[in-house]
Amino acid sequence: MAVDIALVHFPVINKSGETIGSAVTNLDIHDIARAAKTYGVDDYYIVTPYTDQQELIKEIIEHWRTGHGAGYNPARKSALESVKLLDNLEDVVRQVTTKRGRKPVLITTSAQHRENSITFTETRQRIASDEPVLLLFGTAHGLAPKVLEQADYTLLPIKGGTRYNHLSVRSAASIILDRLLGYREGE
Amino acid sequence: MAVDIALVHFPVINKSGETIGSAVTNLDIHDIARAAKTYGVDDYYIVTPYTDQQELIKEIIEHWRTGHGAGYNPARKSALESVKLLDNLEDVVRQVTTKRGRKPVLITTSAQHRENSITFTETRQRIASDEPVLLLFGTAHGLAPKVLEQADYTLLPIKGGTRYNHLSVRSAASIILDRLLGYREGE
Repeated sequence: MAVDIALVHFPVINKSGETIGSAVTNLDIHDIARAAKTYGVDDYYIVTPYTDQQELIKEIIEHWRTGHGAGYNPARKSALESVKLLDNLEDVVRQVTTKRGRKPVLITTSAQHRENSITFTETRQRIASDEPVLLLFGTAHGLAPKVLEQADYTLLPIKGGTRYNHLSVRSAASIILDRLLGYREGE
Repeated sequence: MAVDIALVHFPVINKSGETIGSAVTNLDIHDIARAAKTYGVDDYYIVTPYTDQQELIKEIIEHWRTGHGAGYNPARKSALESVKLLDNLEDVVRQVTTKRGRKPVLITTSAQHRENSITFTETRQRIASDEPVLLLFGTAHGLAPKVLEQADYTLLPIKGGTRYNHLSVRSAASIILDRLLGYREGE
């Protein structure tokens, strides 16, 4: 299994569909790091070009990795060890390619159905056959069209049997990791 | 389908296993309300006996239901409409019993395996056959033993194929709703 994930703060869209950069949300770091650790994701990349945001993320991570939080909550320390901070998506793809020895399959996630869609079942199979996979999650109102267009595939949107499709990125990432990597035998 | 959920702030346990009351986390309200709305949950009960915490929750909910947030983000308004605030679990069970015309099956969730465990598959089947189900989620380090002992069943813990089992309650609730109520045909 060779899965990495990235949480993208630029380029994403706002509710009018304009391309923006979003601010970091503290619990995006924690919740997605904990889910990544639970499901055996290798690296969790947080992507933002903004220096002030990078400083904030570093402070949060250091508090839990080596500061007061490390002794207080070793489980959190261990989850945050997989977090890596990078300026842009190109650097993420480059790092993952170097680590895996080949370019990963780039799979974006979206609340909308897209033409290059891939099912959860097929993605599970690709992961099971040890293809390197890089999953991208967007903050704000989702990944910018530019990013979606670069991807090899876009995962089918999560459907819950209703017409409401406004999950938080924390919920969506957790559900997607469970659908792709969750252990189900006998459950 | 007749599913309600409750997020419990008392009685829960701290990391030493002592029974405590926990403080409300803003994003627990939002994320779980959005997941509940996505998966067709009827009511999302937030349970705390503390007056100051109740005031805080009311302020947050009112901001999004009728305040500035309602116009800014109608999707959030609609998710928060299912949130109900109650003092204790007994009141939740009473309200759900009145609404459903019978006592719901009380199912707790836990990161640990318990003797009264129920599988996700069996719970799905009970929900599909229209049994009223009330799912309980614990904040802090989980529901107090007293609550777990009152339950008809405890859902199997979420496993991710690793030994790490420290998901946030926001992630756990989202994943559990997806496993129990998620639409999967053709996915």
